[in-house]
This record gives sequence, C-alpha cells and structure tokens, in this order.
Amino acid sequence: MDENTLTIILVEPQLGQNIGAVARAMLNFGLTDLRLVRPRDGWPNPEALPLAAGADKILENAKVYPSTLEAIGDLNRLFATSNRTPDMIKTIYTPKLALQQLISTAQHNQKVGVLFGGERCGLKNEDISLCEALIKIPTISNFSSLNLAHAVVLVAYEWFAQTSSTSFEFFRTGRTRLARREDLSMLFAHLEKELERTGFLRHHKKRATMVRNIRNIFQRAHLTEQEVRTLRGIIRSLTGNQLPSQKKAS
Amino acid sequence: MDENTLTIILVEPQLGQNIGAVARAMLNFGLTDLRLVRPRDGWPNPEALPLAAGADKILENAKVYPSTLEAIGDLNRLFATSNRTPDMIKTIYTPKLALQQLISTAQHNQKVGVLFGGERCGLKNEDISLCEALIKIPTISNFSSLNLAHAVVLVAYEWFAQTSSTSFEFFRTGRTRLARREDLSMLFAHLEKELERTGFLRHHKKRATMVRNIRNIFQRAHLTEQEVRTLRGIIRSLTGNQLPSQKKAS
Repeated sequence: MDENTLTIILVEPQLGQNIGAVARAMLNFGLTDLRLVRPRDGWPNPEALPLAAGADKILENAKVYPSTLEAIGDLNRLFATSNRTPDMIKTIYTPKLALQQLISTAQHNQKVGVLFGGERCGLKNEDISLCEALIKIPTISNFSSLNLAHAVVLVAYEWFAQTSSTSFEFFRTGRTRLARREDLSMLFAHLEKELERTGFLRHHKKRATMVRNIRNIFQRAHLTEQEVRTLRGIIRSLTGNQLPSQKKAS
Repeated sequence: MDENTLTIILVEPQLGQNIGAVARAMLNFGLTDLRLVRPRDGWPNPEALPLAAGADKILENAKVYPSTLEAIGDLNRLFATSNRTPDMIKTIYTPKLALQQLISTAQHNQKVGVLFGGERCGLKNEDISLCEALIKIPTISNFSSLNLAHAVVLVAYEWFAQTSSTSFEFFRTGRTRLARREDLSMLFAHLEKELERTGFLRHHKKRATMVRNIRNIFQRAHLTEQEVRTLRGIIRSLTGNQLPSQKKAS
C-alpha cells in the first residue's frame, strides 16, 4: 500500500551524488517514493548510482516532473523544508513535530510528502507557498545550511523512529542472561572472604565502606551469569586457591 | 570550554569526501572536535574541503592518531556506533537515549565522545570493546548500512536537539500577530451577511450547518490580523460593495 509511506520530492537537485545519497538514506529508513523536479543534469544520472550503495531500485523507480505542481498533485499533505524563515505566514515545525503530523495523516490512508530544495539555495518562495507548513531542522544559527542528503536523512529517520515498532530503546546483546541477585551475593561473599583472608579489609573502621564501594563497582556493571562465573574464576586464580574439586568441574 | 561538547572520532575513514561531509554536519550542530584514526588517504586530504562547505576550521583542527586507544585517552565516556550487533555483552541504545546519557555527563564537565567505523565494515570488535555501550541507529533490517556522514548527522542532530535551548517546536513566521477572536467574529458576520444577501444561504434548513462549515474553514487557517483585513477586502471586492469611506481609509 502506497498510502503508508512518505514521498520525498527534490526540486531542482544539482548533484547526482546527492540524489544517490538520498536514495540510500530513504531505503535505510524504509521509504521508496522518490520524485525529482527538473534535476539539473537530467535523469537517469549515472553519478547517482555509487552513492546509492545498493538502493538502485529507488533510483530506477524515481519519477521526474517538469514542475513542482505536477509532482505533488496526488498528495494530501505536503510540508516544505527550509533553513531560512521566509517572510510568509507559515507554521514552522521541527522534524519531530512535522513527522508526528504527517504520520498521523498517513495512518488514515492519505498520502503525505516533504519537499526539499536544490543544493544552491533551497526552495523558492513559490514552491514553499504550495506547502501547508515548513520544517526547519534546528542548527547553529551561523552555519545552518545542511547538505541536501543530510536533510533527507533527518526527515526519514524521524519518520522511521516514529513509525517502526522497533522498541530497542535499551537492551543487551549476547546470549546469556543477566545474573540473578543470588549469583551476585555469592560472588560478593567469595570476594570478601578472600579479601578478608589476604588482609585487604584489615582496617576495621573502614571495612563496611570498602565493602559497599567494591559491591557498587560490580552492581553498576550489570553482570551476566557467565560474567559472574568468570569473575569467580579470576578470584580463585589470583588467590592460587583453586580447589581440586572445582578443577574437575570446569 | 571544551567540556561541553561531543567529540567525534572516525576510525580508519576511507573517503576524504565523507570526512568533509562529517565536518559540515558537525558544525551545523555546533560540534568542533573531530579526531581521525589512521585515515586511509592520509591527512590533510584535499578531497575533504569541498564537502565541508565552509566548515574548514573543523578540518584544520582535526587531530590524527595512530591508534584508537590514543585518540580516546582524555574522554570520560565513549560510545560506539554499529549497525551490527556484535556477539558481546554490550548495552545498545538508540541515538536519542545514548545522547541523553552523554549530555548529562558532559553537563558535569566531563568529556564525552562517539566512535564511528570506516565505510567498508564499520568498527572492529577490538574498537567496540574500548567503548562502554553501543549506539544503533534504527533502520529497516535488510538495508541497515548507513553512509558514514549520515550516521554522524543523526548523532550530532540528537546532541543539538537535546542541548540547544531552541524551543521552536511550533511558531509562526512573519511580523503580524494572530487575529483576535473579535476580528474573526466580524469577518464571519461580514461574510455571512453578504452570503445571505446574495442567496447562498437561502436553504433555511441547511443554513446553520453551512455557516458552521464555512467558519471552520477559516478557524483552521490560524488567520493573522492582516489576513483578516485581506479577506474582508476580498469580500467587499467580490460583492462590488466597496464603500466610499473604506476606499479613502485604505
């Protein structure tokens, strides 16, 4: 279904390399509908291919239009990107807020798109007036001109971040599980027994604080089951205290 | 103060163009500390300059190191970017969450950085093991390799979005103010009077609904004071009903 995507329209893009980089970024974030209005060097442009880095389909399916008006006819909502604030009465959104709006419209099976201007001077006011609102990417004020593909990257990233069900805000890789608290307690008991024996904890007054600090080091490390076993092996090894039964078991 | 920035470290970057694009993206988002570990084509690299698009200072001040270890010595926290999930016990964050953490550390005057691998195959496991956690940019699963500069763009953008006090989540451009509700009421009264007179509202049963629908059109438009004056001028013009006194006043 075409309706659940974001159309990217480049108006008078100049460099084939940038169009290729745009295609790559679009596909990274699951977008496929690329439209070109009067690309300076014609189309297709062989210079786009290397930068697409495998997103060839996006380039092959890109549609070319003689005017912005013809490129946007089927869209229900259209935002323009600009790093200037033209002297027009237009609402300006951050990419995040703009995409919130476009996504909620797309989810009701309506077509949405974003317009990007060419490398040299961005969108003309005439093109901006075809759009309902502006997207301005927050930058430092005295160096605000973004590379064309970089602007597309940020818009496509916000689209994907807000639509994908990827919920890996925080997870751990590897196949083992986090250690149980019991494993940690046994590690601490083992370590503290050896530190006691070797005299590290001989200052009676400081003992409680030292033990707490040492435990905190390992608490912060979010140890896995395997890592606890490894640490206990290290303690045994450092103390030359490996029991014959444990040697057999390993 | 150097402490309140994010250091960008590129490990074995290949293309000068990408290094230039990285410099541009860094400066767009207020970052200045670029470090290069064994850049393939040596340094300085004239191919970086055009893509930097004016961010020449970032390139001039870039420091080159023979090893990752030497490049990161002064940093207090370091995250690695990767689009693979290496078989290591490492926490993986989205750019958003990773930057939240790095920013809160930087705000306590400690130095933070992010490591990016080369174009061909990203960071080696050896480099990743020097970092406390991974940043994985959410992408579609079967086309997940981002352009090097694009990855830097996204990290730098999240840094800036979370640190800058730019609060333009929603504002309007242009110098006029939004119309007062009273101005709108007068516009509606004017329009409805004329629609009554010209017969548009002659269906008595439908009248209330029609009036409501017309009002809603203009409510949604968030009209400014000037736009209300313009619309009233349009009504007068369309009805050929321009009063001599108003002609004088305009």
